[in-house]
Amino acid sequence: MAARPLCSPSANHEENITCPLGRPVVKIRKAVITAAGRNQRNLPLQTLVDRDGQSKSALTILLEEVLQAGIEEIGVVICPGDQGAFAAGAGPHANRVQFIEQPAPLGYGHAVACARKFTGDESFMLLVGDHLYVSKNKNSCARQLLEIASAEACAVSAVQATHESKLPYYGAVGARRLPGRAGLYQVDRVLEKPTPTVAEQKLIVPGLRAGHYLCFFGMHVLTAGVMDLLQHLVTAAGDTGSVHLADALARVAESERYLACELQGRRYDIGVQYGLLTAQLALALHGKDRDEVLTLLVELLAQT
Amino acid sequence: MAARPLCSPSANHEENITCPLGRPVVKIRKAVITAAGRNQRNLPLQTLVDRDGQSKSALTILLEEVLQAGIEEIGVVICPGDQGAFAAGAGPHANRVQFIEQPAPLGYGHAVACARKFTGDESFMLLVGDHLYVSKNKNSCARQLLEIASAEACAVSAVQATHESKLPYYGAVGARRLPGRAGLYQVDRVLEKPTPTVAEQKLIVPGLRAGHYLCFFGMHVLTAGVMDLLQHLVTAAGDTGSVHLADALARVAESERYLACELQGRRYDIGVQYGLLTAQLALALHGKDRDEVLTLLVELLAQT
Repeated sequence: MAARPLCSPSANHEENITCPLGRPVVKIRKAVITAAGRNQRNLPLQTLVDRDGQSKSALTILLEEVLQAGIEEIGVVICPGDQGAFAAGAGPHANRVQFIEQPAPLGYGHAVACARKFTGDESFMLLVGDHLYVSKNKNSCARQLLEIASAEACAVSAVQATHESKLPYYGAVGARRLPGRAGLYQVDRVLEKPTPTVAEQKLIVPGLRAGHYLCFFGMHVLTAGVMDLLQHLVTAAGDTGSVHLADALARVAESERYLACELQGRRYDIGVQYGLLTAQLALALHGKDRDEVLTLLVELLAQT
Repeated sequence: MAARPLCSPSANHEENITCPLGRPVVKIRKAVITAAGRNQRNLPLQTLVDRDGQSKSALTILLEEVLQAGIEEIGVVICPGDQGAFAAGAGPHANRVQFIEQPAPLGYGHAVACARKFTGDESFMLLVGDHLYVSKNKNSCARQLLEIASAEACAVSAVQATHESKLPYYGAVGARRLPGRAGLYQVDRVLEKPTPTVAEQKLIVPGLRAGHYLCFFGMHVLTAGVMDLLQHLVTAAGDTGSVHLADALARVAESERYLACELQGRRYDIGVQYGLLTAQLALALHGKDRDEVLTLLVELLAQT
């Protein structure tokens, strides 16, 4: 199956026509956020204070990151029955969101494939619903990724150099640095949650700290061809198998230009123990209330 | 209207019979938690990690504080329509909870009065639903208060010495120290959110730091007579007035023995900006994961 290159659908509805590299910016209009994990059902209504000091749900913070980066429509993949809670969590942005139910928990790749009708022939942004992002510069992480993907006109996964102790939580890539392009890599292979032994054999990237690998950041720009690959995997897995996105991305690495990039920012997984606390602190320490929160920390530490 | 003293209903169903002071411990079986504030609707599902490292809703943490202190039945006063969310937030304790709707937002005193049928002739514990408590000793704040109320066999409000800048958020008491009883006061008057000027004229308590007053902690043990006083105020206020608990407690101070006590612990209002963050940090810094969270703090500060 040939993957379709990253083109806007208005420019090209047919398959197998290659975008010239270096073509002008391609607009990504749609994003898919996966939030169908059984342990994610309460996340959208968790309240956090954003960097501007506004209290809002975690889902709203994520939607705003995406919308402010230029995305126009968002498909949120949820568990059946969760639409009410997520619509409430989406707050003022509910009208930009289309909810898509994943009928059964058949893996992350299956969840993404559920959005195939929503993305149609377009390239799309893909984000996990249980992460928040804190950029280190004026452009959000989502905007940084969209700008790179548009300029390169190909699929790009954001990655973060990650210690091998955290490999059980992430997909990881084997990649070569693009000469003269800081933080940009050509992806050669993709493995889902590799063991440290396998990672050491297959995923060493020269220049990273020892014991560190390029793991997914939870944010990708993918071409419509990925949906075809996923659908193929879903069909092959049947009703009981589990479908990994990494397996489809491994095929992408073989069949089209596929980059990885390190963004100026960090990801915070709010689904883990103390994840909400860590994300809230990161937001506050990078936001307008930094001094207030530092004071609060000192006072609490003084009390204990 | 005569207030009924703190007696268990099995001992005495009639009114106006005074419990002898110093009688053996009186069992308080019921608690009322008020959570009908319009800004409180999302609080019960906010997820926190408790002192034992377990992730649970804020409501569950509060329910466990009360149940582990010996309370058997809990009435939670909610906005109409919120029962589903609160039942989910109550998790494994939903079967110990009776939800009571406050039909209209007519004040905190009105919310408490909505639980009158639930409390019946019994003395009861009263807590606000948007606070969490962190004890400084092995007994929880709820247990400390119940033990004092049972031993003293009278109404007791937990209080905390609070700076005058925070008077706009709390009810406050004027009180005299009980000789030889550390942290115990006889309440003489109660004012709802007094101005600093009024507080200075009416609520000075010798021995507190300058500019500090005894403000409510959000946790009381009250006699059934308070419900009669509240019902009287509700009837007088009609459909549009607002009923303050403090006005009823002011009458309690005039008509029955009514103590205030400082507990070994702190209250954390999770409804304010950064309230969830502060409560989560306080729980973690007093819990089994203290070292892990201190490490997390240092790492985050090093990144910013």
